[in-house]
Amino acid sequence: MDLWFTEKYENNTALSIKIKKTLYSGKSPFQKIDILESEDLGRILLLDDFIMLTEAHEFAYHEMIAHVPLFAHPNPEKVLIIGGGDGGTAREVVKHDVVKKCVMCEIDGMVVEKSKEYLPTVASAFDNPKLDLLIDDGIKYIKENKDTFDVIIIDSTDPIGPAEGLFKQEFYKQVFNCLKDDGIMVAQAENPYYYTDIQKDMFDNLKAVFPIVTMYLSFIPFYPSGMWSFAFASKKYKYNDNPRISDIENMEKTLKYFNNDIFYGCFALPNFAKVVL
Amino acid sequence: MDLWFTEKYENNTALSIKIKKTLYSGKSPFQKIDILESEDLGRILLLDDFIMLTEAHEFAYHEMIAHVPLFAHPNPEKVLIIGGGDGGTAREVVKHDVVKKCVMCEIDGMVVEKSKEYLPTVASAFDNPKLDLLIDDGIKYIKENKDTFDVIIIDSTDPIGPAEGLFKQEFYKQVFNCLKDDGIMVAQAENPYYYTDIQKDMFDNLKAVFPIVTMYLSFIPFYPSGMWSFAFASKKYKYNDNPRISDIENMEKTLKYFNNDIFYGCFALPNFAKVVL
Repeated sequence: MDLWFTEKYENNTALSIKIKKTLYSGKSPFQKIDILESEDLGRILLLDDFIMLTEAHEFAYHEMIAHVPLFAHPNPEKVLIIGGGDGGTAREVVKHDVVKKCVMCEIDGMVVEKSKEYLPTVASAFDNPKLDLLIDDGIKYIKENKDTFDVIIIDSTDPIGPAEGLFKQEFYKQVFNCLKDDGIMVAQAENPYYYTDIQKDMFDNLKAVFPIVTMYLSFIPFYPSGMWSFAFASKKYKYNDNPRISDIENMEKTLKYFNNDIFYGCFALPNFAKVVL
Repeated sequence: MDLWFTEKYENNTALSIKIKKTLYSGKSPFQKIDILESEDLGRILLLDDFIMLTEAHEFAYHEMIAHVPLFAHPNPEKVLIIGGGDGGTAREVVKHDVVKKCVMCEIDGMVVEKSKEYLPTVASAFDNPKLDLLIDDGIKYIKENKDTFDVIIIDSTDPIGPAEGLFKQEFYKQVFNCLKDDGIMVAQAENPYYYTDIQKDMFDNLKAVFPIVTMYLSFIPFYPSGMWSFAFASKKYKYNDNPRISDIENMEKTLKYFNNDIFYGCFALPNFAKVVL
Protein backbone atom coordinates (compact mmCIF):
# COMPACT_ATOMS: atom_id res chain seq x y z
CA MET A 1 0.00 0.00 0.00
CA ASP A 2 1.39 3.39 -1.05
CA LEU A 3 0.24 5.37 1.99
CA TRP A 4 1.19 9.04 2.38
CA PHE A 5 0.35 11.61 5.04
CA THR A 6 0.05 15.10 3.55
CA GLU A 7 -0.07 18.37 5.44
CA LYS A 8 -1.40 21.24 3.33
CA TYR A 9 -0.33 24.78 4.11
CA GLU A 10 -2.30 27.97 3.57
CA ASN A 11 0.03 29.14 0.79
CA ASN A 12 -1.05 26.28 -1.48
CA THR A 13 1.92 24.08 -0.77
CA ALA A 14 2.06 20.70 0.94
CA LEU A 15 4.47 18.34 2.58
CA SER A 16 4.07 14.56 2.43
CA ILE A 17 5.62 11.66 4.28
CA LYS A 18 5.33 8.00 3.29
CA ILE A 19 3.69 6.02 6.07
CA LYS A 20 4.02 2.36 7.02
CA LYS A 21 1.01 2.31 9.32
CA THR A 22 -1.09 4.15 11.84
CA LEU A 23 -0.11 3.26 15.38
CA TYR A 24 -2.76 5.25 17.20
CA SER A 25 -5.72 7.47 16.32
CA GLY A 26 -7.92 9.04 18.94
CA LYS A 27 -9.63 12.14 20.21
CA SER A 28 -9.01 13.85 23.51
CA PRO A 29 -11.36 16.52 24.90
CA PHE A 30 -9.01 19.05 23.27
CA GLN A 31 -7.83 17.69 19.95
CA LYS A 32 -7.35 14.82 17.54
CA ILE A 33 -4.21 12.76 18.24
CA ASP A 34 -2.53 10.48 15.70
CA ILE A 35 0.73 8.62 15.86
CA LEU A 36 2.05 7.20 12.58
CA GLU A 37 4.98 4.98 11.72
CA SER A 38 6.76 6.54 8.74
CA GLU A 39 8.95 4.84 6.20
CA ASP A 40 12.17 6.76 6.87
CA LEU A 41 11.60 9.36 9.63
CA GLY A 42 10.59 7.17 12.54
CA ARG A 43 7.32 7.82 14.30
CA ILE A 44 5.31 10.98 13.77
CA LEU A 45 3.00 12.78 16.19
CA LEU A 46 0.05 14.69 14.71
CA LEU A 47 -2.30 16.96 16.65
CA ASP A 48 -5.40 18.02 14.71
CA ASP A 49 -3.65 16.72 11.57
CA PHE A 50 -0.61 19.00 11.97
CA ILE A 51 2.84 17.44 12.31
CA MET A 52 4.15 18.09 15.82
CA LEU A 53 7.27 15.98 15.52
CA THR A 54 9.09 13.31 13.57
CA GLU A 55 11.42 11.10 15.60
CA ALA A 56 14.13 11.79 13.00
CA HIS A 57 14.19 15.57 13.46
CA GLU A 58 12.54 16.42 16.80
CA PHE A 59 15.97 17.21 18.29
CA ALA A 60 16.16 20.38 16.16
CA TYR A 61 13.05 21.74 17.86
CA HIS A 62 13.43 20.46 21.42
CA GLU A 63 17.11 21.28 21.85
CA MET A 64 16.59 24.78 20.53
CA ILE A 65 13.48 25.66 22.54
CA ALA A 66 15.16 24.45 25.78
CA HIS A 67 18.89 25.16 25.67
CA VAL A 68 18.80 28.71 24.32
CA PRO A 69 16.85 30.21 27.28
CA LEU A 70 18.59 27.97 29.79
CA PHE A 71 22.02 29.15 28.66
CA ALA A 72 20.86 32.75 28.40
CA HIS A 73 19.97 32.75 32.11
CA PRO A 74 22.87 32.73 34.61
CA ASN A 75 21.16 30.41 37.09
CA PRO A 76 17.92 28.81 35.86
CA GLU A 77 16.95 26.80 38.94
CA LYS A 78 13.20 26.79 38.41
CA VAL A 79 11.78 26.20 34.94
CA LEU A 80 8.16 26.07 33.79
CA ILE A 81 7.06 24.42 30.54
CA ILE A 82 3.58 25.27 29.24
CA GLY A 83 2.44 22.56 26.83
CA GLY A 84 5.14 20.25 25.54
CA GLY A 85 3.01 17.16 26.16
CA ASP A 86 5.25 14.83 24.16
CA GLY A 87 7.98 15.37 26.76
CA GLY A 88 10.79 16.37 24.38
CA THR A 89 11.28 19.81 25.88
CA ALA A 90 11.28 18.43 29.44
CA ARG A 91 13.85 15.83 28.37
CA GLU A 92 16.22 18.64 27.36
CA VAL A 93 15.50 20.88 30.39
CA VAL A 94 16.30 18.23 33.00
CA LYS A 95 19.73 17.64 31.39
CA HIS A 96 20.89 20.89 33.03
CA ASP A 97 22.46 20.27 36.46
CA VAL A 98 21.64 23.82 37.46
CA VAL A 99 17.90 23.13 37.06
CA LYS A 100 16.51 22.09 40.45
CA LYS A 101 12.85 21.91 39.50
CA CYS A 102 10.98 21.73 36.20
CA VAL A 103 7.20 22.12 36.30
CA MET A 104 5.41 21.06 33.14
CA CYS A 105 1.80 22.17 32.75
CA GLU A 106 0.07 20.44 29.83
CA ILE A 107 -3.66 20.81 29.26
CA ASP A 108 -4.09 17.48 27.46
CA GLY A 109 -3.18 14.43 29.54
CA MET A 110 -3.82 12.15 26.61
CA VAL A 111 -0.89 13.63 24.67
CA VAL A 112 1.39 12.76 27.58
CA GLU A 113 -0.08 9.29 27.93
CA LYS A 114 0.15 8.42 24.23
CA SER A 115 3.65 9.89 23.92
CA LYS A 116 4.82 7.70 26.82
CA GLU A 117 3.29 4.69 25.08
CA TYR A 118 4.41 5.33 21.47
CA LEU A 119 7.29 7.84 21.63
CA PRO A 120 9.49 6.59 24.49
CA THR A 121 12.68 8.29 23.25
CA VAL A 122 10.87 11.64 23.30
CA ALA A 123 8.83 11.10 26.47
CA SER A 124 11.84 9.92 28.45
CA ALA A 125 11.88 12.42 31.32
CA PHE A 126 8.51 11.85 32.97
CA ASP A 127 10.09 9.72 35.70
CA ASN A 128 12.81 12.27 36.40
CA PRO A 129 12.58 13.42 40.06
CA LYS A 130 13.20 17.04 39.00
CA LEU A 131 10.05 17.04 36.86
CA ASP A 132 6.57 17.89 38.21
CA LEU A 133 3.88 17.11 35.66
CA LEU A 134 0.57 18.94 36.01
CA ILE A 135 -2.35 18.19 33.72
CA ASP A 136 -3.94 21.61 33.84
CA ASP A 137 -4.65 24.82 31.97
CA GLY A 138 -1.37 26.71 31.55
CA ILE A 139 -3.13 30.08 31.49
CA LYS A 140 -4.71 29.36 34.89
CA TYR A 141 -1.47 27.99 36.35
CA ILE A 142 0.54 31.02 35.32
CA LYS A 143 -2.08 33.39 36.75
CA GLU A 144 -1.89 31.63 40.12
CA ASN A 145 1.91 31.61 40.46
CA LYS A 146 3.65 34.98 40.77
CA ASP A 147 7.38 35.67 40.83
CA THR A 148 8.22 31.96 40.75
CA PHE A 149 10.25 30.89 37.71
CA ASP A 150 13.62 31.74 36.21
CA VAL A 151 12.67 30.46 32.77
CA ILE A 152 9.27 29.81 31.20
CA ILE A 153 9.06 27.85 27.93
CA ILE A 154 5.85 28.03 25.89
CA ASP A 155 5.89 24.82 23.86
CA SER A 156 2.47 25.17 22.29
CA THR A 157 0.61 24.25 19.14
CA ASP A 158 -0.36 26.96 16.64
CA PRO A 159 -2.60 29.89 17.60
CA ILE A 160 -5.72 28.09 16.38
CA GLY A 161 -7.44 25.65 18.72
CA PRO A 162 -6.40 24.99 22.33
CA ALA A 163 -3.29 27.20 22.20
CA GLU A 164 -4.97 30.39 20.92
CA GLY A 165 -4.82 32.13 24.31
CA LEU A 166 -1.07 31.54 24.54
CA PHE A 167 -0.36 34.18 21.88
CA LYS A 168 -2.30 37.06 23.51
CA GLN A 169 -0.93 40.12 25.27
CA GLU A 170 -2.95 39.38 28.41
CA PHE A 171 -1.24 36.00 28.66
CA TYR A 172 2.23 37.50 28.20
CA LYS A 173 1.48 39.90 31.08
CA GLN A 174 0.76 36.92 33.32
CA VAL A 175 3.94 35.21 32.09
CA PHE A 176 5.87 38.37 32.97
CA ASN A 177 4.42 38.30 36.49
CA CYS A 178 5.05 34.57 36.87
CA LEU A 179 8.75 35.09 36.13
CA LYS A 180 11.23 36.27 38.72
CA ASP A 181 12.78 39.75 38.30
CA ASP A 182 15.45 38.47 35.93
CA GLY A 183 13.34 35.83 34.20
CA ILE A 184 13.33 34.77 30.55
CA MET A 185 10.47 33.45 28.42
CA VAL A 186 10.86 31.53 25.18
CA ALA A 187 7.95 30.49 22.95
CA GLN A 188 7.62 28.66 19.66
CA ALA A 189 6.81 31.42 17.19
CA GLU A 190 5.79 30.01 13.78
CA ASN A 191 7.78 30.78 10.63
CA PRO A 192 8.72 34.06 8.99
CA TYR A 193 8.34 32.85 5.40
CA TYR A 194 4.62 32.04 5.54
CA TYR A 195 3.16 33.50 8.73
CA THR A 196 4.56 37.00 9.03
CA ASP A 197 1.16 38.40 10.07
CA ILE A 198 0.70 35.96 12.96
CA GLN A 199 4.27 36.67 14.00
CA LYS A 200 3.83 40.43 13.82
CA ASP A 201 0.86 40.24 16.25
CA MET A 202 2.72 37.90 18.56
CA PHE A 203 5.86 40.02 18.72
CA ASP A 204 3.88 43.24 19.11
CA ASN A 205 2.11 41.64 22.07
CA LEU A 206 5.43 40.57 23.57
CA LYS A 207 7.06 43.96 23.06
CA ALA A 208 4.16 45.61 24.90
CA VAL A 209 5.10 43.55 27.97
CA PHE A 210 8.83 42.69 27.95
CA PRO A 211 11.73 45.16 27.66
CA ILE A 212 13.90 42.73 25.64
CA VAL A 213 12.28 40.83 22.76
CA THR A 214 14.02 39.10 19.89
CA MET A 215 13.77 36.02 17.69
CA TYR A 216 15.96 33.04 16.95
CA LEU A 217 15.81 30.30 14.34
CA SER A 218 16.18 26.57 13.82
CA PHE A 219 16.18 24.39 10.70
CA ILE A 220 13.25 21.96 11.16
CA PRO A 221 12.41 19.96 8.02
CA PHE A 222 8.80 19.02 8.74
CA TYR A 223 7.49 22.35 9.91
CA PRO A 224 6.17 24.66 7.17
CA SER A 225 9.06 26.11 5.10
CA GLY A 226 11.69 24.28 7.20
CA MET A 227 12.51 27.53 8.98
CA TRP A 228 11.16 27.74 12.48
CA SER A 229 11.39 30.61 14.89
CA PHE A 230 11.27 31.11 18.63
CA ALA A 231 10.42 34.28 20.51
CA PHE A 232 12.94 35.28 23.18
CA ALA A 233 11.48 37.69 25.76
CA SER A 234 13.46 38.76 28.77
CA LYS A 235 13.08 41.03 31.80
CA LYS A 236 16.76 41.78 32.25
CA TYR A 237 19.29 39.68 30.32
CA LYS A 238 20.08 39.74 26.63
CA TYR A 239 20.71 36.25 25.30
CA ASN A 240 24.47 36.81 25.31
CA ASP A 241 24.87 38.57 28.67
CA ASN A 242 25.88 35.47 30.63
CA PRO A 243 27.85 33.10 28.45
CA ARG A 244 28.52 29.99 30.53
CA ILE A 245 30.90 28.75 27.84
CA SER A 246 32.23 25.73 29.69
CA ASP A 247 28.70 24.53 30.53
CA ILE A 248 27.69 24.94 26.89
CA GLU A 249 30.76 23.04 25.74
CA ASN A 250 30.03 20.19 28.11
CA MET A 251 26.38 20.05 27.09
CA GLU A 252 26.96 20.25 23.34
CA LYS A 253 28.98 17.03 23.33
CA THR A 254 25.76 15.14 24.06
CA LEU A 255 23.53 17.00 21.58
CA LYS A 256 22.67 16.76 17.89
CA TYR A 257 21.87 20.40 17.11
CA PHE A 258 22.72 22.99 19.77
CA ASN A 259 26.28 24.16 20.33
CA ASN A 260 28.12 27.35 21.23
CA ASP A 261 28.29 28.60 17.61
CA ILE A 262 24.57 27.95 17.17
CA PHE A 263 23.80 29.74 20.47
CA TYR A 264 25.12 32.93 18.89
CA GLY A 265 24.37 32.21 15.22
CA CYS A 266 20.69 31.35 15.68
CA PHE A 267 19.91 34.98 16.55
CA ALA A 268 21.13 36.16 13.12
CA LEU A 269 17.95 36.95 11.19
CA PRO A 270 17.56 37.38 7.43
CA ASN A 271 16.26 40.83 6.48
CA PHE A 272 12.79 39.56 5.56
CA ALA A 273 12.44 38.04 9.04
CA LYS A 274 13.66 41.16 10.85
CA VAL A 275 10.55 43.08 9.82
CA VAL A 276 8.62 41.04 12.40
CA LEU A 277 10.59 42.76 15.14
CA MET B 1 -8.41 22.08 -12.14
CA ASP B 2 -6.59 21.10 -8.93
CA LEU B 3 -3.09 20.91 -10.38
CA TRP B 4 -0.08 20.18 -8.14
CA PHE B 5 3.60 19.74 -8.89
CA THR B 6 5.20 17.23 -6.53
CA GLU B 7 8.91 16.61 -6.04
CA LYS B 8 9.63 13.30 -4.34
CA TYR B 9 12.79 12.90 -2.30
CA GLU B 10 14.80 9.75 -1.73
CA ASN B 11 13.82 9.59 1.96
CA ASN B 12 10.17 8.92 1.08
CA THR B 13 9.00 12.46 1.58
CA ALA B 14 7.63 14.92 -0.95
CA LEU B 15 6.95 18.58 -1.44
CA SER B 16 4.04 19.88 -3.49
CA ILE B 17 3.12 23.27 -4.93
CA LYS B 18 -0.25 24.18 -6.39
CA ILE B 19 0.12 25.22 -10.02
CA LYS B 20 -2.00 27.55 -12.15
CA LYS B 21 -0.49 26.48 -15.46
CA THR B 22 2.58 25.35 -17.35
CA LEU B 23 4.28 28.26 -19.10
CA TYR B 24 6.98 26.29 -20.88
CA SER B 25 8.05 22.66 -21.26
CA GLY B 26 10.96 21.62 -23.40
CA LYS B 27 14.12 19.60 -23.69
CA SER B 28 17.60 20.93 -24.27
CA PRO B 29 20.52 18.70 -25.29
CA PHE B 30 21.32 18.51 -21.55
CA GLN B 31 18.09 18.36 -19.61
CA LYS B 32 14.35 18.78 -19.35
CA ILE B 33 13.27 22.39 -18.68
CA ASP B 34 9.88 23.38 -17.28
CA ILE B 35 8.59 26.73 -16.11
CA LEU B 36 5.35 26.71 -14.13
CA GLU B 37 3.11 29.46 -12.82
CA SER B 38 2.29 28.58 -9.20
CA GLU B 39 -0.67 29.72 -7.17
CA ASP B 40 1.21 31.59 -4.42
CA LEU B 41 4.97 31.41 -5.05
CA GLY B 42 5.28 33.07 -8.43
CA ARG B 43 6.94 31.21 -11.26
CA ILE B 44 8.96 28.04 -10.74
CA LEU B 45 11.90 26.73 -12.74
CA LEU B 46 12.33 22.94 -12.92
CA LEU B 47 15.34 21.15 -14.43
CA ASP B 48 14.85 17.42 -14.91
CA ASP B 49 11.78 17.74 -12.64
CA PHE B 50 13.73 19.18 -9.71
CA ILE B 51 12.79 22.62 -8.37
CA MET B 52 15.61 25.05 -9.11
CA LEU B 53 13.85 28.15 -7.90
CA THR B 54 10.56 29.73 -6.95
CA GLU B 55 10.26 33.45 -7.61
CA ALA B 56 9.04 33.87 -4.02
CA HIS B 57 12.16 32.46 -2.37
CA GLU B 58 15.03 32.53 -4.89
CA PHE B 59 16.61 35.46 -3.04
CA ALA B 60 17.55 33.13 -0.17
CA TYR B 61 19.69 31.06 -2.51
CA HIS B 62 21.12 33.68 -4.87
CA GLU B 63 22.00 36.26 -2.23
CA MET B 64 23.74 33.67 -0.10
CA ILE B 65 25.75 31.96 -2.86
CA ALA B 66 26.99 35.35 -4.13
CA HIS B 67 27.45 37.77 -1.24
CA VAL B 68 29.20 35.46 1.21
CA PRO B 69 32.30 34.80 -0.99
CA LEU B 70 32.30 38.35 -2.33
CA PHE B 71 32.42 39.81 1.18
CA ALA B 72 34.93 37.22 2.35
CA HIS B 73 37.40 38.41 -0.31
CA PRO B 74 39.08 41.82 0.23
CA ASN B 75 38.99 42.81 -3.45
CA PRO B 76 36.98 40.49 -5.73
CA GLU B 77 37.52 42.19 -9.08
CA LYS B 78 37.17 39.13 -11.30
CA VAL B 79 34.41 36.62 -10.60
CA LEU B 80 33.54 33.41 -12.44
CA ILE B 81 30.15 31.71 -12.19
CA ILE B 82 29.94 28.10 -13.37
CA GLY B 83 26.31 27.25 -14.15
CA GLY B 84 23.72 29.63 -12.78
CA GLY B 85 21.83 29.74 -16.08
CA ASP B 86 18.76 31.44 -14.63
CA GLY B 87 20.91 34.52 -13.98
CA GLY B 88 20.05 34.99 -10.29
CA THR B 89 23.63 34.58 -9.09
CA ALA B 90 24.96 36.97 -11.75
CA ARG B 91 22.29 39.51 -10.73
CA GLU B 92 23.73 39.52 -7.20
CA VAL B 93 27.41 39.49 -8.25
CA VAL B 94 27.17 42.57 -10.49
CA LYS B 95 25.67 44.57 -7.59
CA HIS B 96 29.19 44.82 -6.12
CA ASP B 97 31.00 47.97 -7.27
CA VAL B 98 34.32 46.26 -6.60
CA VAL B 99 33.53 43.59 -9.23
CA LYS B 100 35.03 44.71 -12.56
CA LYS B 101 34.26 41.60 -14.58
CA CYS B 102 31.92 38.63 -14.05
CA VAL B 103 32.27 35.69 -16.45
CA MET B 104 29.38 33.26 -16.42
CA CYS B 105 29.96 29.89 -18.05
CA GLU B 106 26.71 27.92 -18.46
CA ILE B 107 26.62 24.69 -20.44
CA ASP B 108 22.95 24.95 -21.37
CA GLY B 109 22.06 28.02 -23.43
CA MET B 110 18.40 27.10 -23.37
CA VAL B 111 18.22 27.65 -19.61
CA VAL B 112 19.49 31.20 -20.13
CA GLU B 113 17.14 31.81 -23.05
CA LYS B 114 14.04 30.54 -21.27
CA SER B 115 14.92 32.34 -18.03
CA LYS B 116 15.22 35.62 -19.94
CA GLU B 117 11.83 34.95 -21.50
CA TYR B 118 9.90 33.72 -18.44
CA LEU B 119 11.87 34.84 -15.35
CA PRO B 120 12.83 38.45 -16.08
CA THR B 121 13.29 39.45 -12.42
CA VAL B 122 15.81 36.63 -11.98
CA ALA B 123 17.52 36.93 -15.38
CA SER B 124 17.95 40.68 -15.05
CA ALA B 125 21.74 41.02 -15.38
CA PHE B 126 22.41 39.58 -18.84
CA ASP B 127 22.65 43.06 -20.37
CA ASN B 128 25.01 44.31 -17.67
CA PRO B 129 28.30 45.43 -19.26
CA LYS B 130 30.30 43.77 -16.47
CA LEU B 131 28.87 40.34 -17.38
CA ASP B 132 30.39 38.07 -20.03
CA LEU B 133 28.12 35.13 -20.80
CA LEU B 134 29.71 32.03 -22.30
CA ILE B 135 27.64 29.05 -23.35
CA ASP B 136 30.27 26.41 -22.79
CA ASP B 137 31.41 23.52 -20.62
CA GLY B 138 32.56 24.92 -17.26
CA ILE B 139 35.03 22.08 -16.72
CA LYS B 140 36.75 22.89 -20.01
CA TYR B 141 36.70 26.66 -19.36
CA ILE B 142 38.27 26.29 -15.93
CA LYS B 143 40.99 24.01 -17.28
CA GLU B 144 41.93 26.60 -19.91
CA ASN B 145 42.14 29.62 -17.60
CA LYS B 146 44.85 29.58 -14.92
CA ASP B 147 45.41 32.08 -12.11
CA THR B 148 42.59 34.30 -13.36
CA PHE B 149 39.75 34.77 -10.85
CA ASP B 150 39.39 36.16 -7.32
CA VAL B 151 36.13 34.31 -6.68
CA ILE B 152 34.60 31.28 -8.41
CA ILE B 153 30.97 30.37 -7.71
CA ILE B 154 29.75 26.89 -8.64
CA ASP B 155 26.00 27.33 -9.08
CA SER B 156 25.22 23.84 -10.31
CA THR B 157 22.44 21.31 -10.26
CA ASP B 158 22.80 18.13 -8.19
CA PRO B 159 25.63 15.65 -8.77
CA ILE B 160 23.48 13.51 -11.05
CA GLY B 161 23.21 14.48 -14.72
CA PRO B 162 25.13 17.35 -16.37
CA ALA B 163 26.68 18.59 -13.10
CA GLU B 164 28.21 15.29 -11.94
CA GLY B 165 31.77 16.32 -12.85
CA LEU B 166 31.48 19.50 -10.78
CA PHE B 167 31.67 17.53 -7.51
CA LYS B 168 34.91 15.60 -8.28
CA GLN B 169 38.36 16.15 -6.81
CA GLU B 170 39.91 16.54 -10.28
CA PHE B 171 37.55 19.46 -10.96
CA TYR B 172 38.35 21.12 -7.64
CA LYS B 173 42.07 20.94 -8.53
CA GLN B 174 41.34 22.86 -11.74
CA VAL B 175 39.24 25.37 -9.80
CA PHE B 176 42.16 25.84 -7.41
CA ASN B 177 44.47 26.55 -10.37
CA CYS B 178 41.95 28.86 -12.03
CA LEU B 179 41.84 31.01 -8.88
CA LYS B 180 44.45 33.63 -8.07
CA ASP B 181 46.75 33.01 -5.09
CA ASP B 182 44.22 34.39 -2.62
CA GLY B 183 41.09 33.13 -4.38
CA ILE B 184 37.88 31.77 -2.87
CA MET B 185 35.48 29.19 -4.26
CA VAL B 186 31.88 28.70 -3.15
CA ALA B 187 29.62 25.89 -4.38
CA GLN B 188 26.05 24.82 -3.69
CA ALA B 189 26.46 21.78 -1.48
CA GLU B 190 23.15 19.94 -0.98
CA ASN B 191 21.62 19.50 2.49
CA PRO B 192 22.96 17.95 5.66
CA TYR B 193 19.66 16.40 6.79
CA TYR B 194 19.17 14.06 3.81
CA TYR B 195 22.38 13.89 1.79
CA THR B 196 25.19 13.54 4.31
CA ASP B 197 26.93 10.89 2.15
CA ILE B 198 27.04 13.08 -0.97
CA GLN B 199 28.27 15.95 1.19
CA LYS B 200 30.94 13.86 2.86
CA ASP B 201 32.42 12.94 -0.55
CA MET B 202 32.22 16.51 -1.76
CA PHE B 203 33.89 18.00 1.30
CA ASP B 204 36.58 15.28 1.37
CA ASN B 205 37.36 16.16 -2.26
CA LEU B 206 37.54 19.85 -1.40
CA LYS B 207 39.74 19.29 1.65
CA ALA B 208 42.19 17.32 -0.48
CA VAL B 209 42.71 20.46 -2.58
CA PHE B 210 42.05 23.61 -0.51
CA PRO B 211 43.70 24.54 2.81
CA ILE B 212 40.54 26.22 4.19
CA VAL B 213 37.21 24.43 3.76
CA THR B 214 34.00 25.06 5.66
CA MET B 215 30.23 25.16 5.17
CA TYR B 216 27.50 27.74 5.56
CA LEU B 217 23.73 27.55 5.56
CA SER B 218 20.60 29.23 4.24
CA PHE B 219 16.89 28.64 4.88
CA ILE B 220 15.39 27.78 1.46
CA PRO B 221 11.80 26.48 1.66
CA PHE B 222 11.58 24.55 -1.62
CA TYR B 223 14.85 22.69 -1.49
CA PRO B 224 14.73 19.33 0.30
CA SER B 225 14.45 19.80 4.10
CA GLY B 226 14.46 23.61 3.78
CA MET B 227 18.09 23.67 4.95
CA TRP B 228 20.58 24.29 2.20
CA SER B 229 24.32 24.39 2.45
CA PHE B 230 27.20 25.95 0.54
CA ALA B 231 30.82 24.84 0.51
CA PHE B 232 33.34 27.59 1.21
CA ALA B 233 36.86 26.72 0.00
CA SER B 234 39.68 29.22 0.16
CA LYS B 235 43.38 29.42 -0.63
CA LYS B 236 44.24 32.07 1.94
CA TYR B 237 41.38 33.91 3.66
CA LYS B 238 38.97 32.64 6.27
CA TYR B 239 35.50 34.01 5.69
CA ASN B 240 35.92 36.55 8.48
CA ASP B 241 39.47 37.75 7.77
CA ASN B 242 38.46 40.86 5.81
CA PRO B 243 35.24 42.29 7.16
CA ARG B 244 34.31 45.21 4.90
CA ILE B 245 31.60 46.18 7.37
CA SER B 246 30.56 49.44 5.73
CA ASP B 247 30.23 47.77 2.30
CA ILE B 248 28.11 45.02 3.86
CA GLU B 249 25.93 47.57 5.61
CA ASN B 250 25.38 49.48 2.37
CA MET B 251 24.60 46.33 0.43
CA GLU B 252 22.26 44.80 3.00
CA LYS B 253 19.83 47.74 2.76
CA THR B 254 18.92 46.53 -0.73
CA LEU B 255 18.66 42.80 0.09
CA LYS B 256 16.00 40.44 1.44
CA TYR B 257 18.20 37.85 3.13
CA PHE B 258 21.89 38.64 3.52
CA ASN B 259 23.15 41.07 6.17
CA ASN B 260 26.11 41.46 8.49
CA ASP B 261 24.64 39.21 11.23
CA ILE B 262 23.86 36.53 8.66
CA PHE B 263 27.39 36.79 7.21
CA TYR B 264 28.72 35.57 10.56
CA GLY B 265 25.74 33.51 11.73
CA CYS B 266 25.40 31.38 8.60
CA PHE B 267 28.68 29.62 9.40
CA ALA B 268 27.28 28.28 12.70
CA LEU B 269 26.57 24.61 12.05
CA PRO B 270 24.39 22.26 14.08
CA ASN B 271 26.32 19.28 15.45
CA PHE B 272 24.74 16.80 13.02
CA ALA B 273 25.95 18.95 10.08
CA LYS B 274 29.48 19.38 11.45
CA VAL B 275 30.22 15.70 10.89
CA VAL B 276 30.43 16.45 7.15
CA LEU B 277 33.55 18.53 7.84
